[in-house]
Parts: sequence; structure tokens; C-alpha cells
Amino acid sequence: MDTSGWTAAPARTASLRRRGAVLERAILDAALEQLGTVGWNGLTMEGVAAGAQTGKAAVYRRWPSKEDLVADALQAGLPRLDAAPDRGSVRSDLIVLCTQARDAMFSRPGFALRSVIHECDHAQAERFHAVIVEGVVEPTIKLLREVIEHGIERGEVRPDGVNGYVLDAIPAMMMYRSKMCASEWTDRDIEEMIDQLMVPLLRPHGG
Amino acid sequence: MDTSGWTAAPARTASLRRRGAVLERAILDAALEQLGTVGWNGLTMEGVAAGAQTGKAAVYRRWPSKEDLVADALQAGLPRLDAAPDRGSVRSDLIVLCTQARDAMFSRPGFALRSVIHECDHAQAERFHAVIVEGVVEPTIKLLREVIEHGIERGEVRPDGVNGYVLDAIPAMMMYRSKMCASEWTDRDIEEMIDQLMVPLLRPHGG
Repeated sequence: MDTSGWTAAPARTASLRRRGAVLERAILDAALEQLGTVGWNGLTMEGVAAGAQTGKAAVYRRWPSKEDLVADALQAGLPRLDAAPDRGSVRSDLIVLCTQARDAMFSRPGFALRSVIHECDHAQAERFHAVIVEGVVEPTIKLLREVIEHGIERGEVRPDGVNGYVLDAIPAMMMYRSKMCASEWTDRDIEEMIDQLMVPLLRPHGG
Repeated sequence: MDTSGWTAAPARTASLRRRGAVLERAILDAALEQLGTVGWNGLTMEGVAAGAQTGKAAVYRRWPSKEDLVADALQAGLPRLDAAPDRGSVRSDLIVLCTQARDAMFSRPGFALRSVIHECDHAQAERFHAVIVEGVVEPTIKLLREVIEHGIERGEVRPDGVNGYVLDAIPAMMMYRSKMCASEWTDRDIEEMIDQLMVPLLRPHGG
């Protein structure tokens, strides 16, 4: 993108009278851009201001620290997971849902989140960890519950098929294999997991 | 235990003519003891030698670096997971196996391993991570396979009940909930996971 923003900013500021949400969005985008190029340790409030073609004060007015800014930028950049798929079968719905979760994990903010967690100190890591939980894990579990309940209504899933262990199985498996086997969760991997783990786990007993 | 070992060592050395495996065991125990008291950053080869009431040369002769010594001490200290339980039902066998894996995770070397991974740098962390994989994860999966195959022979488990996703389900869930919910995997948690996740996953379809 525009890597000359730092030096070019003063000349352009006059023509960029952005306020409120528009300016905020530009700052958050610039923060993500910086994370991708210079990482957590290299990112500065000055650099972000320059990238967003605004002044440092405009950044500090909204975010008192680099940590606050980065947490918001990552959260805002993650793909939304807010509507349960409804393709007519629990198998198809689970595949769509896992694909969305995988796409969030491997989105630009998803990658940035994981590298930030490696770079920053323990207390900061806790905070960014919460961004993953609130931005990806919890929404995925909420939608999983809807998809499985929908399957129970259709008689496709055993009546006692929703419990905490069943709901955690997909996030647990995705996290475990990403970490332990560096799995990138291809479409094929997702389909295999649904067919070999979730379908047998959910189907009616004796059905 | 003997925290005065450092100053007392020279006087006692003469009466402690240990060699080979006995001396090695004393050094590895002293390394674990040091990890528990001063952590990875505080541990020194001198401190370990003092704790084992031997000389620094005896330590360096066997382990060229602190990293090598600590990796061996952790590996040697983990409880062995080498015999598959055989209690007559897949449910009981899985409970025994998970309990053993939990006890290894929460053993003194298991705790030390996790805190070392937090303290040390990235390349070292990879190495200690491998100690967890080789010392706990892989042995658990090997025994899980035996337990499930045994269940298939008895007709308790569906014939296609062994695959990579099924075998990874328990380690994935144990790692995920330890990390995400700080679960300590009480006996009750283990029993619930087996009853709500593994039994429905493994039982014969229509059986």
C-alpha cells in the first residue's frame, strides 16, 4: 500500500477532512497494515497515524495505548460469524460453519492475532487471546448450537446431541491440529472431520 | 529438599562415589528441583551440580547445555504411559487412560514443562513442546488406539471407530479446555467427557 504516507502526510492532511467512523476505520486499517509489515514490536502510534494520513493526536484521542488500538483493529478486522447456515442438512451446515471459522482463523487479522500473541508479553497476550475467544470461538460455538438444534428438530440428530463437550469438539480439534500438526484446515480436512467425527457423534442412536 | 547443598557439597563429595545411572538420576532430580524453585531463567548448571552434590564437570560431561539437561530431566520425570488399561469395557478403559494422561499433565514435570515453555525463547519452546508430544501426546494416542481396537473386538465399538479424528478427540479436548477454561480435568470432568463425547462417538450404529 502507501508506504510513503509518513513523509507525505502533512501535505495531504488538508484535503482529508475525515471524521468519526470514517477516520476511525482508516486508523484501524492502518494499524492492521502496520502489524502485517512491521509486527507488534515495530508498530508505533506515529506510524499508524502516518499510515492513516492523520495526526498522532487523532489516534491517541481514541486509543490511549498501542495495545488498545491493536486489540480494536484486530477485533474489527475479523470476519463476522453471525448467521447460522441453513442448507437443509446438519452435515452441510457444519461444513459451511467450519469453513467460515477456518477463514476467520486464516484471515489477515487472524494471522496477525497469532503473531502478536507470540511477540508481546504475557499480560498483553491474555488480552489478545480474549479477542480470539470473543471474536471467533464464542460466535462459532453459538452458531454450532443453532445448527445442531436445527438438526434435532429435523430428527437428523439424536435428541441429547447438544452438550458442552459436543459443542467444544470442533473448536478443540481445529485449535489442536493447527498447533500440533500445523494443519491449515483445507476444505478436504474439514469435510473429513465432519464425516469421521461429527456425523457419527450426532446421529440418532439406532436411527 | 537439601537447599544447603551448594555450600555443603565439597565436604560430602568424598562420601558420595556415585557413577553412571545413579549419578545421572541425581543430576536429573536436582534439575527438576531447581526448575520448581528458581524456574528456567534462574536454573544454572552450577546450581544443579550443587543440588546433586557433584561437580560442574560431571554435569557438563553428560549434557553440553542447560537446554539439553532440562529436556532430559523433564522427559525422564514424566509418568510413563506404556500399558493400555484392560478393565473389560471401553468406557472404563478410556476413563483410566484419561486419568493417567491428566496425571502426567499435572505432574511436577508436567507443570514445569508448561512454565518452561512460557519462560524460554521460541526455538527452545519448540524443543520442550516436542517433549510434551513425545512424552504425553503420542503415548496417549497409541494406547487410545489399543483400547478402541479392543472395544471393536468385543463388539462394543463400531467397526469403523478408529480414525485420526477419533483418536485426536481426547487430546484435543484436554488441551483445549486446559488452555481456554483453565480446566484441571477433575475425575468428574473426565467421566463426563467419556460419557457425553466418546461413548456416543464410538458405539455401534443401531447397536
